[in-house]
Amino acid sequence: MNTPEHEQVNTPQHVVVHDPTLRDGHHAVRHQLGAEQLRAYAKAADAAGVPVVEVGHGNGLGASSLQAGQARLSDDDMLAVVRESLSKSRMAVFMLPGWGTTADLRKAITHQVDVVRIGTHCTESDLAERHLGFLRENGVEAQGVLLMSHMATPERLARECAQLVEFGAGAVGIFDSSGHYLPADVTERITAIRGAVDVPVAFHGHNNLGMAVANSIAAAEAGAGILDACARGFGAGAGNTQLEVLVPVLQRMGFPTGIDLYGVLNAADIAERELMPAPPTIDSVAVVSGLAGVFSGFKNRVLDISRREKVDPRDVFFELGRRQAVAGQEDLIVDVALTLREALGS
Amino acid sequence: MNTPEHEQVNTPQHVVVHDPTLRDGHHAVRHQLGAEQLRAYAKAADAAGVPVVEVGHGNGLGASSLQAGQARLSDDDMLAVVRESLSKSRMAVFMLPGWGTTADLRKAITHQVDVVRIGTHCTESDLAERHLGFLRENGVEAQGVLLMSHMATPERLARECAQLVEFGAGAVGIFDSSGHYLPADVTERITAIRGAVDVPVAFHGHNNLGMAVANSIAAAEAGAGILDACARGFGAGAGNTQLEVLVPVLQRMGFPTGIDLYGVLNAADIAERELMPAPPTIDSVAVVSGLAGVFSGFKNRVLDISRREKVDPRDVFFELGRRQAVAGQEDLIVDVALTLREALGS
Repeated sequence: MNTPEHEQVNTPQHVVVHDPTLRDGHHAVRHQLGAEQLRAYAKAADAAGVPVVEVGHGNGLGASSLQAGQARLSDDDMLAVVRESLSKSRMAVFMLPGWGTTADLRKAITHQVDVVRIGTHCTESDLAERHLGFLRENGVEAQGVLLMSHMATPERLARECAQLVEFGAGAVGIFDSSGHYLPADVTERITAIRGAVDVPVAFHGHNNLGMAVANSIAAAEAGAGILDACARGFGAGAGNTQLEVLVPVLQRMGFPTGIDLYGVLNAADIAERELMPAPPTIDSVAVVSGLAGVFSGFKNRVLDISRREKVDPRDVFFELGRRQAVAGQEDLIVDVALTLREALGS
Repeated sequence: MNTPEHEQVNTPQHVVVHDPTLRDGHHAVRHQLGAEQLRAYAKAADAAGVPVVEVGHGNGLGASSLQAGQARLSDDDMLAVVRESLSKSRMAVFMLPGWGTTADLRKAITHQVDVVRIGTHCTESDLAERHLGFLRENGVEAQGVLLMSHMATPERLARECAQLVEFGAGAVGIFDSSGHYLPADVTERITAIRGAVDVPVAFHGHNNLGMAVANSIAAAEAGAGILDACARGFGAGAGNTQLEVLVPVLQRMGFPTGIDLYGVLNAADIAERELMPAPPTIDSVAVVSGLAGVFSGFKNRVLDISRREKVDPRDVFFELGRRQAVAGQEDLIVDVALTLREALGS
């Protein structure tokens, strides 16, 4: 295949692939991965040369709870297992302030975590100040990432990212939490953020519109230096960017990752066999939640409440999108369903 | 989501979505769809406003055989069931000269087929001359499509397409049969073909590299007027472009299709429930066959022979790609496996 000209005029940067299979994938299995599963996958990713392996409860450090779901293993156990399974890959954790606290960060540091990501809603980077400061004081590599980033303008995201850098983030990033973006949306946002910060920029995609790989490539072409991807796309709903697809596509586009192709295919085979009941696919609910820009974690509650109230769950998703619902606002689902029901005159 | 400028300067054309769920999907179920399955899906696609519904054995008219697989239903039965199930959608068939003959085309005409596609290997459009001529004489809308199109240069594809138009094709197209393309490859090829013909140009994608939707969008942006897509991506290996994902993405990109969103989601739900054991996903073999540019129909034989000869099936695929293997050359698999085995010194 000839390389088109527009790929040759850019000087391609080395892309760091950040693998949250053992953290974001947890959402697809109610946080029930056990020690043998973590070990099998972490060793395979390490052997493949995946640079960063993230582990934890789906909602990050400190999130195991009745509300967010009890994980099978404690944070301590997960970190210990993955730490001893990695020889070259760096170990990462994720934390949402509110779920996790400085005490959880201390715990991660005792497990010799290499990279800590602090995530906030896309307009609330303020909430990361204390934790990013703590990590800076302790000399731990810290990243600040913005969730549900399609809900903010490129300019707003750029300002929030600049603030994350001031707080101490050594890298910043945006999550397409609801899988809403098309490639031009990603290009615009990564470009805006790159104009506002001097640190590496990360992109984390979901596949609701079949665009996770294409969006990640758009991010790399706009200068993103960190791309998130999970083996077999392991993750909630339509899943995440598929790691073992992204790696060779990046290679073909001229973005070296340092990851061995057969190694990452082996890791993906292990993930499919050991971690998941079935690989994610794009079902109708995933398409609709992606179009509506709604967090796919709402799925089961939307389906249950829609059945009870005899309304179309697709209408509920689109209305939740219009109301800019975000995680934590599950009460809105009932409200929306009742409003739609009344509008039907029943 | 703001519409980026480059989308506004083009005048978007109306895109005709061509749905081969009931033909290409047959490859995923050994051509075993029954009358009730064809009827249920065809009615749902018709209700959604899908403009063209293609039906038949996976290899097209006349292909049911021991070698290509015996279909559950005869061509006559398939065409009769789908014809009576469609009220607005047009009915299409596919034919590969060699498998099908003029007698098969006559039969399709008696079933009031609306669109006939004649497919050949990408460098062998000559083989379509007689059948396209026959269809022109009989006043049937005919299309000429080139399979495994990544194996020819854009210039060669443009010449082959121009020849198909001379033979009588009212539309021409390229199939990414092995799922090898990235979007820039598609842009380059559709642009070259558009420069050589005045008829609508079709693109048919496969999802081996997670790019089927992105490649289809690239085709539309380069001026393709016909895009193929299957419900839930129903098809062999990694599957085809996913219909109910493509439709709303085209809508967001400013390419109207006339297809109702909820209707096509309903059709996809029926397809998942009634037609397939499970929706296609991108497994490691699919990634490798896409990268290697090898027809994914080789999969089972490559796996069997590799197991027997104790060689890595991924090596076999890459070597088949280097040797430019095409469907019908299955003998090459044994040859390649033995060569690799010897190279291993065993």
